[in-house]
Amino acid sequence: MTPEIRMKVEASFAAQGLMRTLGAELTDLGQGFCTVRVPIRPETGQQHGFAHAGLTFSVGDSAAGYSALSVMPADVEVLTSEMKIHLIRPAAGTWLRAEGKVIKPGRRLCVVSADVYAEGDGADRHVATLLGTMVPTAL
Amino acid sequence: MTPEIRMKVEASFAAQGLMRTLGAELTDLGQGFCTVRVPIRPETGQQHGFAHAGLTFSVGDSAAGYSALSVMPADVEVLTSEMKIHLIRPAAGTWLRAEGKVIKPGRRLCVVSADVYAEGDGADRHVATLLGTMVPTAL
Amino acid sequence: MTPEIRMKVEASFAAQGLMRTLGAELTDLGQGFCTVRVPIRPETGQQHGFAHAGLTFSVGDSAAGYSALSVMPADVEVLTSEMKIHLIRPAAGTWLRAEGKVIKPGRRLCVVSADVYAEGDGADRHVATLLGTMVPTAL
Amino acid sequence: MTPEIRMKVEASFAAQGLMRTLGAELTDLGQGFCTVRVPIRPETGQQHGFAHAGLTFSVGDSAAGYSALSVMPADVEVLTSEMKIHLIRPAAGTWLRAEGKVIKPGRRLCVVSADVYAEGDGADRHVATLLGTMVPTAL
Repeated sequence: MTPEIRMKVEASFAAQGLMRTLGAELTDLGQGFCTVRVPIRPETGQQHGFAHAGLTFSVGDSAAGYSALSVMPADVEVLTSEMKIHLIRPAAGTWLRAEGKVIKPGRRLCVVSADVYAEGDGADRHVATLLGTMVPTAL
Repeated sequence: MTPEIRMKVEASFAAQGLMRTLGAELTDLGQGFCTVRVPIRPETGQQHGFAHAGLTFSVGDSAAGYSALSVMPADVEVLTSEMKIHLIRPAAGTWLRAEGKVIKPGRRLCVVSADVYAEGDGADRHVATLLGTMVPTAL
Repeated sequence: MTPEIRMKVEASFAAQGLMRTLGAELTDLGQGFCTVRVPIRPETGQQHGFAHAGLTFSVGDSAAGYSALSVMPADVEVLTSEMKIHLIRPAAGTWLRAEGKVIKPGRRLCVVSADVYAEGDGADRHVATLLGTMVPTAL
Repeated sequence: MTPEIRMKVEASFAAQGLMRTLGAELTDLGQGFCTVRVPIRPETGQQHGFAHAGLTFSVGDSAAGYSALSVMPADVEVLTSEMKIHLIRPAAGTWLRAEGKVIKPGRRLCVVSADVYAEGDGADRHVATLLGTMVPTAL
């Protein structure tokens, strides 16, 4: 991944109001993969204080999307076309960490996945998995 | 839908920190359907100022989930098991309105859908459709 | 829909070996919709004699795909990019009927859905719903 | 996996008419995983002679489902509740091989995945990935 692509990904992430509102951070980025972390807070929780499905989706979709952007040419961005999430365990803990990766790159569409882990008490719990499609468009 | 069920749904919605943070409102509720509205704001946008996929998902998932809760017994709540979203148009406008409904009720699982519309300039645009599974659990 | 497009759809359907093997028929076709029927037989059943999920998927995917093809230019065909199916009731009866339609047409991708009904004893039962993405490609 | 469970899985597979019609074989089975192979033939192809999406789905769904059945008690079977498939490359070759596995077991529902490979010319091509939900029911 060139420095130019890295800057494009970081600038796009920084421009997303929702990521700021949720407190999300882009913590790792490489050719075809991306990690995003977000705190689990009452303000972004559901009725029992666990992370809301919407929070888990947001961070997973973001990690998946930026993993796709990392393999695109400099003048291209990506949009989520469709995404499926399975919520497999309660998202309890202090942070969510979403690890996105590219399953199948392509000029017309890019298949991506993400796994989301809840961090806390020194252990990781696999709380969600996502699988979806990103569509490249002209920047 | 009994007043007891209506109160349960409204109390659950009010207890979700994320819904408050996003500015979401439960605006319609009946036997097997539910409408949730949320403003489109820079704080919940993506890099171009449109609604972020995470916002659209959150409001759609919420409307779908509460449509399922409306058909459950009083001592049961629901959790999202899995959900797919298609983002079919840019979510530009002033508000998002998600209309959720039950496709197939059940004691073990409940299939739900939601359609999300962007309101603005006096017109509605269909921006997303969701299809997923809610799982009833003891309250 | 022009006669040229109708002929293209019918020729494509006729060229699919799997549709013949399953005994499927294209029974209705219009601008943005398509119906496919298939008998429920022991040879295409699951372990209890109901229609196999693979049969239900095949007929639903086919109806959805040809609904997309009906809105494409003459020199374009479509491929399934991704498809989700919910199996909501046992597919018992004599025939399956899949009704596909276009949710959102597009030159780069086309969002489609299908509902599958089991016919038998003079009644229809809604047994499955599908939602997915077709990708246009040069013929 | 006990011999009893292995026999249950093999008997269920043998009782599926569609698997016989497609020529599918259960070629590997263990605790939480299952492999199914099927020939790519004109009778189960699409309009260009590649494997039909319905064939790829059928074999992937079957491998995923039997991986779930391998971790269930002896008096339980499983049904596909919902399943998503991404078709990522043309399924050209002589055989399809679907490798299913359990992502998250559970008494109420079981999250499963499968990857499908096309074999031919001495190489494997990753042609599809599936992610879905199996529901345990009393046998």
